[in-house]
Amino acid sequence: MPERFAYLGPEGTFTEAALTIAVERAGLPETPELIPCATVPAALETVRTGTADAAMVPLENSVEGAVPATLDELATGEPLSVTGEVLLPVSFALLARPGTTLQDVKRVMTHPHAAAQCRGWLAGALPEAEILMGSSTAAAAASLTDPGSAADAAIAAPIAGRHYGLVELATDIGANSDAITRFVMVARPGAPSEPTGADRTTVVLFIADDHPGALLEILSEFSMRGVNLTRIESRPTGHGLGRYCFSIDCDGHVKDARVGEALMGLKRICSDVRFLGSYPRSDGGLPTTRPGMTDADFASAATWLNGIRDAGGCG
Amino acid sequence: MPERFAYLGPEGTFTEAALTIAVERAGLPETPELIPCATVPAALETVRTGTADAAMVPLENSVEGAVPATLDELATGEPLSVTGEVLLPVSFALLARPGTTLQDVKRVMTHPHAAAQCRGWLAGALPEAEILMGSSTAAAAASLTDPGSAADAAIAAPIAGRHYGLVELATDIGANSDAITRFVMVARPGAPSEPTGADRTTVVLFIADDHPGALLEILSEFSMRGVNLTRIESRPTGHGLGRYCFSIDCDGHVKDARVGEALMGLKRICSDVRFLGSYPRSDGGLPTTRPGMTDADFASAATWLNGIRDAGGCG
Amino acid sequence: MPERFAYLGPEGTFTEAALTIAVERAGLPETPELIPCATVPAALETVRTGTADAAMVPLENSVEGAVPATLDELATGEPLSVTGEVLLPVSFALLARPGTTLQDVKRVMTHPHAAAQCRGWLAGALPEAEILMGSSTAAAAASLTDPGSAADAAIAAPIAGRHYGLVELATDIGANSDAITRFVMVARPGAPSEPTGADRTTVVLFIADDHPGALLEILSEFSMRGVNLTRIESRPTGHGLGRYCFSIDCDGHVKDARVGEALMGLKRICSDVRFLGSYPRSDGGLPTTRPGMTDADFASAATWLNGIRDAGGCG
Amino acid sequence: MPERFAYLGPEGTFTEAALTIAVERAGLPETPELIPCATVPAALETVRTGTADAAMVPLENSVEGAVPATLDELATGEPLSVTGEVLLPVSFALLARPGTTLQDVKRVMTHPHAAAQCRGWLAGALPEAEILMGSSTAAAAASLTDPGSAADAAIAAPIAGRHYGLVELATDIGANSDAITRFVMVARPGAPSEPTGADRTTVVLFIADDHPGALLEILSEFSMRGVNLTRIESRPTGHGLGRYCFSIDCDGHVKDARVGEALMGLKRICSDVRFLGSYPRSDGGLPTTRPGMTDADFASAATWLNGIRDAGGCG
Repeated sequence: MPERFAYLGPEGTFTEAALTIAVERAGLPETPELIPCATVPAALETVRTGTADAAMVPLENSVEGAVPATLDELATGEPLSVTGEVLLPVSFALLARPGTTLQDVKRVMTHPHAAAQCRGWLAGALPEAEILMGSSTAAAAASLTDPGSAADAAIAAPIAGRHYGLVELATDIGANSDAITRFVMVARPGAPSEPTGADRTTVVLFIADDHPGALLEILSEFSMRGVNLTRIESRPTGHGLGRYCFSIDCDGHVKDARVGEALMGLKRICSDVRFLGSYPRSDGGLPTTRPGMTDADFASAATWLNGIRDAGGCG
Repeated sequence: MPERFAYLGPEGTFTEAALTIAVERAGLPETPELIPCATVPAALETVRTGTADAAMVPLENSVEGAVPATLDELATGEPLSVTGEVLLPVSFALLARPGTTLQDVKRVMTHPHAAAQCRGWLAGALPEAEILMGSSTAAAAASLTDPGSAADAAIAAPIAGRHYGLVELATDIGANSDAITRFVMVARPGAPSEPTGADRTTVVLFIADDHPGALLEILSEFSMRGVNLTRIESRPTGHGLGRYCFSIDCDGHVKDARVGEALMGLKRICSDVRFLGSYPRSDGGLPTTRPGMTDADFASAATWLNGIRDAGGCG
Repeated sequence: MPERFAYLGPEGTFTEAALTIAVERAGLPETPELIPCATVPAALETVRTGTADAAMVPLENSVEGAVPATLDELATGEPLSVTGEVLLPVSFALLARPGTTLQDVKRVMTHPHAAAQCRGWLAGALPEAEILMGSSTAAAAASLTDPGSAADAAIAAPIAGRHYGLVELATDIGANSDAITRFVMVARPGAPSEPTGADRTTVVLFIADDHPGALLEILSEFSMRGVNLTRIESRPTGHGLGRYCFSIDCDGHVKDARVGEALMGLKRICSDVRFLGSYPRSDGGLPTTRPGMTDADFASAATWLNGIRDAGGCG
Repeated sequence: MPERFAYLGPEGTFTEAALTIAVERAGLPETPELIPCATVPAALETVRTGTADAAMVPLENSVEGAVPATLDELATGEPLSVTGEVLLPVSFALLARPGTTLQDVKRVMTHPHAAAQCRGWLAGALPEAEILMGSSTAAAAASLTDPGSAADAAIAAPIAGRHYGLVELATDIGANSDAITRFVMVARPGAPSEPTGADRTTVVLFIADDHPGALLEILSEFSMRGVNLTRIESRPTGHGLGRYCFSIDCDGHVKDARVGEALMGLKRICSDVRFLGSYPRSDGGLPTTRPGMTDADFASAATWLNGIRDAGGCG
């Protein structure tokens, strides 16, 4: 039976594009089944219930920031694990039904985020066009398949054009040509894949009490072991203003000694630590760390400690 | 001429309720003009252009988290200042046209956030009702004034019921009865109000370079001077994943010595510090700080330093 | 064969008094042999060569500070272990041959440190007396046994009076009635005694390079694990000004998890860590530590880590 | 009237050699009067009473470590100021009366520290010689001027040979050819000399209470402002074991902004800060500091702060 992957739909979203990349990378024996879902919680629920084996959802965007729905579902819902990531440049295209020219375009439908990022291009190329809002860029593209659509064109991902038989009237029309979205593959909890040497670990930390300096202590547990953070987000716990949990990505794998010791340290001082997974970094970046923090350094120090515990002396 | 205040509309939003509170507190000589705006950026733009004297916008919610549009506009748009805050419990009511009973309600309109928070109540009280999504809770309430409205009832703030001549079929129907939203009053830059002893300061910090430990250094500048943080959010700068600025609230006033020294320290190590304002805390909370961090302690240490610089000895 | 203990002599020193206390505490089956040595290095050398089983030497004094000869021998000589400690109040007596009265005393012999501490008493009680310097307080007392001695009295430990058949003309004549010397028992390297719950650990740390902040990093390794320092001394390494090693005592036992992890952390960042021993605190003081730092906390965090490494999930 | 300088005598000590260097550097109009004193406290007392204008005393040695008498007198006696420093290589010579050859030497007198450092040379060159101990290396040299001296030669500073009309039978015979002693010039309290750009500052810090982490807090006050420590010594306060003050040298001048702010921070958290002086480093070393810590950086941050305090905005 082929694997089944849920994703934030509808067909033609950037998330589907990310999922396609992940599926290609995985080199699966059978073509998997892809299941579009209306919302991030819905996509993750298919994994929890077993309807899907895993789900691809957006985690953060270099322009918009974190995706709260994803962070909150992972932080507080029934436990799930992150098993991989895909970084995808956000490239917007102006899509239309075949035969449409730029001059024909009077009404453009898209999602408000995309409208904001393409505002400059629209002002220059289609100053008279009316902008209509859809629930997603893919939905905007899909709406064009209805001949009675209120819109003549849609701003969406190129993949949406391929899905809905549309042509690209213009490409790469966003203001941030280096905008990137990071997507994560989420599965039911299981053993993390083996370390590759260029891994990332995702955790959620709940503060034991809101004493001043609690965040400083948390960051010190990482920095003392030479573990670099690559993302930190505070999220409300829902129990009043000023009560946060922290969603954190760090360099390294839970099986790396320095990451393991940092996590144990956090476990001791936090009210809760939710481990969400260790997985290969898709940017291939290698961790830079302080001297003395390799697995060999940890092993050597442990051997030394056992020596002095057993026999004294200078180890 | 009365003062003019913009806010995130339409009429009947929680933001209007917060603005009403702020206006009452201010005890203005004339009834001010209240200007509803469609979006947070639009509300802030009225202030920048001088159409309004100030604007009330939501900054964070104890359930949903930060309001990215507000953070980003304040962090990177034309400079504005925060001059005050209002904390407002989020209380949802089921509103309907007069004469409607709970049994009559087949279709409920509201905003997705409110729907999520009232899901439990709806499942119990209106298990058969269809839920329609509006662009805001106030818009959902407003829609009921149209006799041909698709909805029989709306979930919105009680203030929306008063605005639109609706009655409350049920009150306080949200899951988080202690949910709170924090709103801020934003004006054009100007001298901060005088310290009250229970103030808050809001700043945005841009990291000079992304070296590991940069956030730790920032937090240390505060903690070394006994300045407590009450909110910290990372926001992307738009220049690639992993590039963040930090939106921060701390206890105290820019004119407090400890806050001033911390800000100078941050100014020296950050690539930029945007001061957004010092203003009274609306929860009346008093800062708790470390010994040695009062204005008197700073003044006494400065006198001592001047003594040893001028005349040596032990001060 | 009885055990043999070296000590900093001659007979009648405070060190011999400390050794006597340690021997009594130990409840040995046979009366041990006590071997006075002329210097700290000589006493420690008897242990290294096997002439003695252990040696008692002074480590620090609450008025004079550290005893450099002891610190340096332990830090850089052939490895030895500290196996115990004795805290001894420093009480000076004026000793003389039987039949001597205070009025007879014209010349008082003692060690310069003792002279300094008894200066006040001498100025009041023997304002005319000439002060002669001896190589130790015990040597000063011993000199009185020679009828041709240049001195009529000696300032020394009460134990010296008992040794040399002298009488106490005055007792407790030092300025600091709460002065205390801490002595340590030193043996050849061996397994440390089992933890008692109120232990002390002594180490010497050599800095990998003299970068600013190296000492801060060292202290953080302790404080992060809730390990309190009770003594820290910098000592030159002999390789130029500004090159130091640090002689440190901390609360806890090398077999305590938090101490072990701190030592491994130090091992990784220092160029060398010399473990000198873990032994019961003789003041019976209990360690105060941060929450989350007990052996049970460490064990629980390790179990949790193993769980997520093996099976993922939230542990 | 010529200036009068006290020093740790007798004539011919390394301290006198250091004083000679300082006097030459100063280029005084008249040949000053040099006053040898028997002890460090005695030398400092001549300054306090006005008998001398300043005193030269040893502070630390790269082999022996700190000189406790100097640290303690400066930390707790009637206030004095350090106005300068001299670094002097410790070079030992074997001195004898003219006409003596190495073969004639049967008995060598010196101070125990010098004997220890020249042990290797003695074992090779004079294996049969008896070693006699004097109260100082200079006293050993002086004793040779008595034809009935028990010794044939003395190990002392070369300057002692010149003083006492002796010849050098061997030079530079110590084991540590790079051993250095640091001497300080001490005067009555007065305004520090102007910053030179390569200065050192000496302070003594008394801990407010012995809470764990107090030393960490002290070090952080320096490191946060990019001020490097070049020496740190704990010294007992005399009030029980475990109660210390810290004698510290740091890079920079009290009039440097970063040093001034660090000292004010220390003043606020310590029970007492004794400022002992800022003076040129005699090694000419330039401070290395973190970015953002120059006087210009501090001035610019202060200007910015004043701007936002007065007029708000982003400074």
